[in-house]
Amino acid sequence: MANTNGTTSDLRATFLGVYSVLKSELLNDPAFEWTDDSRQWVERMLDYNVPGGKLNRGLSVIDSYKLLKEGKDLSEDEVFLASALGWCIEWLQAYFLVLDDIMDNSHTRRGQPCWFKVPKVGLIAVNDGTILRNHIPRILKRHFREKPYYVDLLDLFNEVEFQTASGQMIDLITTIEGEKDLSKYSLPLHRRIVQYKTAYYSFYLPVACALVMAGENLDNHVNVKEVLIDMGIYFQVQDDYLDCFGEPEKIGKIGTDIEDFKCSWLVVKALEHCNEEQKKIIFEHYGKADPADVAKIKAIYNEINLQGVFADFESKSYEKLTSSIEAHPSKAVQQVLKSFLGKIYKRQK
Amino acid sequence: MANTNGTTSDLRATFLGVYSVLKSELLNDPAFEWTDDSRQWVERMLDYNVPGGKLNRGLSVIDSYKLLKEGKDLSEDEVFLASALGWCIEWLQAYFLVLDDIMDNSHTRRGQPCWFKVPKVGLIAVNDGTILRNHIPRILKRHFREKPYYVDLLDLFNEVEFQTASGQMIDLITTIEGEKDLSKYSLPLHRRIVQYKTAYYSFYLPVACALVMAGENLDNHVNVKEVLIDMGIYFQVQDDYLDCFGEPEKIGKIGTDIEDFKCSWLVVKALEHCNEEQKKIIFEHYGKADPADVAKIKAIYNEINLQGVFADFESKSYEKLTSSIEAHPSKAVQQVLKSFLGKIYKRQK
Repeated sequence: MANTNGTTSDLRATFLGVYSVLKSELLNDPAFEWTDDSRQWVERMLDYNVPGGKLNRGLSVIDSYKLLKEGKDLSEDEVFLASALGWCIEWLQAYFLVLDDIMDNSHTRRGQPCWFKVPKVGLIAVNDGTILRNHIPRILKRHFREKPYYVDLLDLFNEVEFQTASGQMIDLITTIEGEKDLSKYSLPLHRRIVQYKTAYYSFYLPVACALVMAGENLDNHVNVKEVLIDMGIYFQVQDDYLDCFGEPEKIGKIGTDIEDFKCSWLVVKALEHCNEEQKKIIFEHYGKADPADVAKIKAIYNEINLQGVFADFESKSYEKLTSSIEAHPSKAVQQVLKSFLGKIYKRQK
Repeated sequence: MANTNGTTSDLRATFLGVYSVLKSELLNDPAFEWTDDSRQWVERMLDYNVPGGKLNRGLSVIDSYKLLKEGKDLSEDEVFLASALGWCIEWLQAYFLVLDDIMDNSHTRRGQPCWFKVPKVGLIAVNDGTILRNHIPRILKRHFREKPYYVDLLDLFNEVEFQTASGQMIDLITTIEGEKDLSKYSLPLHRRIVQYKTAYYSFYLPVACALVMAGENLDNHVNVKEVLIDMGIYFQVQDDYLDCFGEPEKIGKIGTDIEDFKCSWLVVKALEHCNEEQKKIIFEHYGKADPADVAKIKAIYNEINLQGVFADFESKSYEKLTSSIEAHPSKAVQQVLKSFLGKIYKRQK
């Protein structure tokens, strides 16, 4: 029996063990005639892009499934399957990140060069992104084909991927080079981008996987979805806040949202709270790389007390989420949702 | 009732009518909150990339389904569904082409600039490629969710996409810039690339869609798959041949496989048939843009009578394919396969 009541680091080790199993199955997938070169390429690509993140999304499938089982010990098989679903989410994330980095022409990711920046990779990374994406149905087919909920898993991953790509699309087309236009930025646009680009796959998908594995019909859990989407939006607002006001040592990077002309919650709120004079300054200096321009923007953020506006948003979000959670009829589901909320409330990184 | 026994141009018009329906459904997909900008973007992207090809793959789903029904008139609903599956293949092809053009840094496609070369598109095309890919399960879910074969369609498209991406991968990694190495090129490598990159989605997938819609279990049609894969390989060898020996006016382009260092059937066969002296010349001049280099390669192709080698391959392929087809127990399936073979045998374009 796997030690299902073990520590966080036990769980992480178990989870990483499942990665090795899945990888080796994929590298011997009988649907393709492997060459040595192609097998080596995919192995290196997977090791470089899939397991190097915080793994929060993947691990939370197992956590959520345990909570839904209300403390019953999980069988080895259940731990494996919940881990496999968790890895599908990590694979999905790797696919998005590999392609996003190409589109944003980013340089580093998780403390190493972006995959497409690695020598000899270049734009082959586009195809590697699609390979990552294609691994998800391979994993699902191998381990879930005989389950009554197999088709629900396929539908779930397909729908969430569609929503994420659609969110990425509105983000991309609102920031087309040469058409930088702050007047397009609004709270509804910001909400739409973060809801679709981030919240579905980061917050809803892990819990939805756990629910499906527990035999639940997702149509009966629309309210769970709503709470998780709201939590995902709150999480991304924190991200926007920390990009400017967080400590670089804690968040592990120096934020550049102002320089990058991002549709950040901060600039949207600043435009809402500023006077005409401040607005003129924001329009003139937002989205420029010069530190003097950035400083002018940050000065206005301080003048209008954006930190206070955020603190207010944070406590209101917490209250609203808590009362939504407590309205849920199932204590087990409440626990799942509270565990997510607990992990992100007032986070500093 | 649709005129299911009408002319080719009737069928094409019907098929294009289904495109409009599918497009309008996708542009109003309730899984996403559309903005005007994003709806316009997707509509333009679809019209630019999806319906502009020859539509052979898509149309052949309807043709094959009709043959499987042995001449019975199809209902309007059946024509619509077969067309929707045909369009899924065209969507899949559009997704591959949009991304391939980015990776190959191509300039034109189907007589117009590649999508990523269109002003303001650029690398947003990477995400557009993923949107195209995501439309396939959206179409399948809307029109096939209640069919007993829904999960088989999902599995089929997933497996074929995986195979295509894997074929594309071996093509990409054998031609990595700075590692041009002719000694890697061999008939088994060529066969593997074309089988996975082209044959599965172009030849097997249309017939497999028709079989699934006709209620067949694909596990019982492994021999049909094998014949279609062989036909796809034969088709790609013709493509390689026409790139060098075809008439540009007929094939609609000027071939550049020699300049592009492609793992073409011609160079593989040339390496097999040439003497040591000719081999040295091929190694020295293959993959160079200068017309003088290209002329040296073509001279060797003529010296060793590659056209004769091809003619021999063509007639042997035809014989082998015909006898495999005639060994099939079902006359309807034989008709489907013969119809495919008839369309490509001795093609000049």
